[in-house]
Amino acid sequence: MTAPAEITADRLDLREKEMVNTDWFNEELDIRTKKTDEIVCRFLPEEEGYARRVIEAMNYSVLAGGKRLRPLLIRETAIMYGANPSLYEPFMAALEMIHTYSLVHDDLPAMDNDEYRRGRKTTWNVYGEGMAVIAGDGLLNYAFETALGVLKACEECADPAVSFSRVSRALYVLARNAGIYGMVGGQCADIQTQLHPQQTDEEELLYIHSHKTAAMIESGFTIGAILGGAPQEDIDSLAVIAGNVGLAFQIRDDILDVTGTQQDLGKSIGKDAEEGKITYVSLHGLEGAGEKVRELTDEALVLLEKLPLKDRFLPMLLQSMTGRNK
Amino acid sequence: MTAPAEITADRLDLREKEMVNTDWFNEELDIRTKKTDEIVCRFLPEEEGYARRVIEAMNYSVLAGGKRLRPLLIRETAIMYGANPSLYEPFMAALEMIHTYSLVHDDLPAMDNDEYRRGRKTTWNVYGEGMAVIAGDGLLNYAFETALGVLKACEECADPAVSFSRVSRALYVLARNAGIYGMVGGQCADIQTQLHPQQTDEEELLYIHSHKTAAMIESGFTIGAILGGAPQEDIDSLAVIAGNVGLAFQIRDDILDVTGTQQDLGKSIGKDAEEGKITYVSLHGLEGAGEKVRELTDEALVLLEKLPLKDRFLPMLLQSMTGRNK
Repeated sequence: MTAPAEITADRLDLREKEMVNTDWFNEELDIRTKKTDEIVCRFLPEEEGYARRVIEAMNYSVLAGGKRLRPLLIRETAIMYGANPSLYEPFMAALEMIHTYSLVHDDLPAMDNDEYRRGRKTTWNVYGEGMAVIAGDGLLNYAFETALGVLKACEECADPAVSFSRVSRALYVLARNAGIYGMVGGQCADIQTQLHPQQTDEEELLYIHSHKTAAMIESGFTIGAILGGAPQEDIDSLAVIAGNVGLAFQIRDDILDVTGTQQDLGKSIGKDAEEGKITYVSLHGLEGAGEKVRELTDEALVLLEKLPLKDRFLPMLLQSMTGRNK
Repeated sequence: MTAPAEITADRLDLREKEMVNTDWFNEELDIRTKKTDEIVCRFLPEEEGYARRVIEAMNYSVLAGGKRLRPLLIRETAIMYGANPSLYEPFMAALEMIHTYSLVHDDLPAMDNDEYRRGRKTTWNVYGEGMAVIAGDGLLNYAFETALGVLKACEECADPAVSFSRVSRALYVLARNAGIYGMVGGQCADIQTQLHPQQTDEEELLYIHSHKTAAMIESGFTIGAILGGAPQEDIDSLAVIAGNVGLAFQIRDDILDVTGTQQDLGKSIGKDAEEGKITYVSLHGLEGAGEKVRELTDEALVLLEKLPLKDRFLPMLLQSMTGRNK
């Protein structure tokens, strides 16, 4: 997993060059996030009829305003490989709906029992527990309804057989990464380790990170490329990049739980140690954890540079994801 | 909605003839239900890895042993139109998984708070609430993973373009009938009316029945036909039949809540009246409700007779669904 020394040196040069581009990146991030948000919202269902209440709860949850990172990644990679917006935009909305449903259910009293998220009342706290359960179900289901709509759009494409094949594959990636072999699997292991924190080993910890977090990031990195007909080699690279970023992102989270301030993070810190939770930091120390984040980031950057990047946005986004201080 | 007199008379003749076939029907029902059960179980995920616990909870829920009515209907109509088993069998499993997830979430303390179902502990009661929430999520997601696998099988079919088109349509029907425009929508209205039982009118009551119950029965009646390339007219008839059966099934349930015995039904009776719930019986009386069930059943039977039935199984199944005494 360690990148050779010369590659690391190259990367360091690159990093210095990009320091001056920070303003450009921040501006672009803002523009592209807004565009992503606009696309996601376009696919939300109308709040009408006898099911109005559950649709309101679903839309309330999606509109709580996340970073829209996963759909943003779909759009970036889709544009990189020239995918058709009529194919990838519904997938952007679908992935964000799946991410949102997982938060709605995670926040339930039977799960993490969170009353607030990003300073806003959680869905169950506004609509009641029962409605929050079916709002999550409704979002997961509507994600598939939305993405499946793309199969119909294929019939209008220049080469329907090619489009069908790509869309089928993208649908399958979307589904698999969200289920028991992806996010739900990671949540299961996470619930189990919370019950028996002392029995968790590094293998299980890495399983949780790679499934609970990285699987959905992998959908973000690969679906756009699949829809754009990227070479298999590139799709494989994007999956490795996503795995590294997802893991680095989580280890960084563990580090911040020790070094961050409550004010910076907007959440209580030191919670992991208090709960006797095994984390990458408790296993390898702050320095070891920091080194791992750098290694994972470097390897991902090296792979990313080999892809047909349109500009410096993706490498900078990747660094901001793993090197974030909040 | 009333069938003309001569058709009703025909139907009565038919009904008499079929009385002698009851043994045959019961035997066939047993054989075909077992076959359906075997197919559904073949698609259940292996209980292994770090996600083992949630997979156990999912399989426990599916194996609780329902009537397998919805997948049975898919198989019957698929055979009627000569669909390929590699196309329709995964849909049978998927539809049963969706039906099962809805029961798992319905039973949660935050919803109906049921500790037992069919004499067996409910999923949350065995695995805990958090695990039951994600087991339901896992089932819904795995239903789509399972059904989406069929898109791959299309590539091996004699005419991939035709298969893709039918499977796409079946996938969309599966998704839509389960979501906010189907079952989840019905559940939402049902939760709302439980909060305000006196404000429910007949229109809303019919909405709940046609969405919470009939939508999933519609998937059962139409998906097999769609996959077999049935004429649009037949698919439309099957949707009407499903709507009638679903509604008749629910009204019959309301009737039994008044006339049935606890022992027959295996659940507490008189619950609706106690809770001040508006039902078809409270609106139209026992006689009016019984007449409605007969009307709906007759109309469905007339439509069914026009389809290319292989034997008398489906008409008898339909009557057993609406005329059941438990």
